Amino acid sequence: MNVHSTHTAANGSTHRHLLGIEDLSREDVFRILDRAMFYIENNRHQDKKHPILKGRTIINLFYENSTRTRTSFELAGKRLGADVINMTVASSSVKKGETLIDTAMTINAMHPDCIAMRHPESGACHLLAQKVNCSVINGGDGMHEHPTQALLDALTIMQHKGKIEGLQVAICGDILHSRVARSNIKLLNMLGAKVRIIAPPTLMPSCPESFGVEPFHDMRKGLKGCDIIIMLRLQLERMEGNFIPSVREYFHFWGLNEEKLSYAKPDALIMHPGPINRGVEIDSKLADDLNRSVILQQVEMGVAVRQAALEFLLHDHG
Amino acid sequence: MNVHSTHTAANGSTHRHLLGIEDLSREDVFRILDRAMFYIENNRHQDKKHPILKGRTIINLFYENSTRTRTSFELAGKRLGADVINMTVASSSVKKGETLIDTAMTINAMHPDCIAMRHPESGACHLLAQKVNCSVINGGDGMHEHPTQALLDALTIMQHKGKIEGLQVAICGDILHSRVARSNIKLLNMLGAKVRIIAPPTLMPSCPESFGVEPFHDMRKGLKGCDIIIMLRLQLERMEGNFIPSVREYFHFWGLNEEKLSYAKPDALIMHPGPINRGVEIDSKLADDLNRSVILQQVEMGVAVRQAALEFLLHDHG
Amino acid sequence: MNVHSTHTAANGSTHRHLLGIEDLSREDVFRILDRAMFYIENNRHQDKKHPILKGRTIINLFYENSTRTRTSFELAGKRLGADVINMTVASSSVKKGETLIDTAMTINAMHPDCIAMRHPESGACHLLAQKVNCSVINGGDGMHEHPTQALLDALTIMQHKGKIEGLQVAICGDILHSRVARSNIKLLNMLGAKVRIIAPPTLMPSCPESFGVEPFHDMRKGLKGCDIIIMLRLQLERMEGNFIPSVREYFHFWGLNEEKLSYAKPDALIMHPGPINRGVEIDSKLADDLNRSVILQQVEMGVAVRQAALEFLLHDHG
Repeated sequence: MNVHSTHTAANGSTHRHLLGIEDLSREDVFRILDRAMFYIENNRHQDKKHPILKGRTIINLFYENSTRTRTSFELAGKRLGADVINMTVASSSVKKGETLIDTAMTINAMHPDCIAMRHPESGACHLLAQKVNCSVINGGDGMHEHPTQALLDALTIMQHKGKIEGLQVAICGDILHSRVARSNIKLLNMLGAKVRIIAPPTLMPSCPESFGVEPFHDMRKGLKGCDIIIMLRLQLERMEGNFIPSVREYFHFWGLNEEKLSYAKPDALIMHPGPINRGVEIDSKLADDLNRSVILQQVEMGVAVRQAALEFLLHDHG
Repeated sequence: MNVHSTHTAANGSTHRHLLGIEDLSREDVFRILDRAMFYIENNRHQDKKHPILKGRTIINLFYENSTRTRTSFELAGKRLGADVINMTVASSSVKKGETLIDTAMTINAMHPDCIAMRHPESGACHLLAQKVNCSVINGGDGMHEHPTQALLDALTIMQHKGKIEGLQVAICGDILHSRVARSNIKLLNMLGAKVRIIAPPTLMPSCPESFGVEPFHDMRKGLKGCDIIIMLRLQLERMEGNFIPSVREYFHFWGLNEEKLSYAKPDALIMHPGPINRGVEIDSKLADDLNRSVILQQVEMGVAVRQAALEFLLHDHG
Repeated sequence: MNVHSTHTAANGSTHRHLLGIEDLSREDVFRILDRAMFYIENNRHQDKKHPILKGRTIINLFYENSTRTRTSFELAGKRLGADVINMTVASSSVKKGETLIDTAMTINAMHPDCIAMRHPESGACHLLAQKVNCSVINGGDGMHEHPTQALLDALTIMQHKGKIEGLQVAICGDILHSRVARSNIKLLNMLGAKVRIIAPPTLMPSCPESFGVEPFHDMRKGLKGCDIIIMLRLQLERMEGNFIPSVREYFHFWGLNEEKLSYAKPDALIMHPGPINRGVEIDSKLADDLNRSVILQQVEMGVAVRQAALEFLLHDHG
């Protein structure tokens, strides 16, 4: 565990957090991925319980709707034997309600062992972690980070390629707003992959090189020779007319289809954090091609990686 | 178990489902009802746990709001020791969200053992069952089926009459749109009851005889000599002006009151799937008459039957 | 247990309820507070399970949104090993839905052991208790009572002052609409405190003396020499223009700040049921002053007191 992965709370106690990829050393990452392998297997059995967190309390604090991620955390906690409490805060009620800090302090007083939070504002999880006496997992904060997504993506790649070091990985789409892209870039760089980002100019961050990646404005050039293609979800509601001319044109230039895919290596994997917009980021048939697309395996890896992360944070204090 | 009750999923594995009454043989039905008797008793104890599904995962996937049915499935699963996850999908968000198939595949990747689904479209549960590697229970799909409702109704009748064979059963009200009616007609016919349906012309299906029932357009004639009266819920919001002239007139002609009830046998039971619209389908005093109405016992039987169904699908693979 | 704390249900069975402070004798109160001390300690451990309610079913029936109180009851039940089911009924859907009595009877048929209910109408929990065969805990009903809040407040005071008898307690703010005030006045009087209420004329009940309290219309006079200050939450949405001229003016006259606080004893505690409106009922800095404000300890006591109340109602039938 490196120095970043514990934080001192207001009251002086320290707890492990998973707020971003920087909280993890290479050693931590491999430890989590190793344990996740165990949980992948365990979740395929009838009896999926591995109750190492019996008697512990996990709170899912979601300020954005995400049935998929919330369910993944809920399953991970319950299969480890913890009590899991869902607190979904509609963003509409945030204004007339408590501040995040007051909510955090209130939850903290109930003695949770871990809070998994999703929040629309970047940095919200760091703020939470400063205020509470328990572990915090960032389940996605604004445009900042989504570390368990990066870990599950790494696990998926490891399962298929046996390694990450030296692989050519292209991340494609709305890089500018994507916490998935940020966490993946950091983790893939740490693990020795070569990362390219492919985006239209309006969705490309201003200094892409500062992230340690190679930027492309052309899908065919960017995909050339790639081992892994990570397509990002387009937040349709905030896109059209502002960042992209139309969904149809976006698909034409930036959507993944057979023709563009042919520029990547023949055994290149197609990944997507889900839920996919069929015919926007990716051709519908391609998304369903089980020889190329590993989107559903990513979901399976998600539960296992979250179990391993919970074990890492809450169980094996060494 | 008859040939219909297993289905082959896309990946070739087979699982038991309860999508409709056709999934069950007479033998299956009696096996479920027998086990339900055990759970009725068990649920009356302080310690209601019978943890035969410990370590298993059940997902309640509800595309329509139904606190009653969702709670019944949740209690059934938890009392059997399973982890139960609620996923409520507001129908308003379905349009901008994933397709049912993408949601199904995503949930499936998390390795549930059973999905209990309610969905506004007929056939949705069959579609789900084709896509997943776990058992599916139809918790009500459009105007199609609601098999656990029919099973709990059969159990309620058995408890009071000791048999179903040979009984005269009248199902009254909005037969046209009712999945409760469809599942009950199939199950009651299978078990040897004589089924009549009573409805205004606008709410009667076009070829009632094809269901193996005797249609009536007059409550007094239809109820004559009946042992069992199953009143259906009127979906008020879609009724008035389209299918019925007014709620008041509906009650006058088709609502159950003392006078109409007098045409049935003196010991006839009054049933209703709930929630009741007092003064619409049924006179308020009659609904509360514990000598005649078994509506609350139906709720009790509901939990027990769902426990038995979960055991049947998930536990005793023979 | 005094004669008020059991009630005879429609079917003749008796169950303990916690509907209001009158349900408790002094002896009951001290028994609950004593047990709560055990749970405070227990909740600070890693393993927080004390599964004396294993196999039991608790239903959280909330007709008003209150993530805080619902979570507190949910945690209390789960840490005692019970199955906890959340049923949140949006008040908007109550009109087109079932009556409270029909919902109560339906839930009752599922054999819960306890229902914790919050409801916007005073007396709703008493109605519920008359209809069901299980224990009922009032989690707040209209302007009537909120007994677990009063118990957790008493526990918080005991923790700091070692006693309640003889203490001067001021309850300040919207006394008129406050169930927290009503329950606290009853419990504090029972335990021998001297209770003052401080409110603007528009928010003062008509015969304050009949409650056994001393009314004040001036904060400085009312706070003089007090040991405990309980600030009430202002329901902002229904206030402005009706009961108070403006939030700003309310804070000027009735909000707690350093200057007004100086009239109380130097070691006076500041309490608030939460969530606080910063700068309305209380100065923001003062709310965060851990030497004076025990608002977060109240939250911690809340879980412990609810565990003790559940144990009292469900476990030790003596």
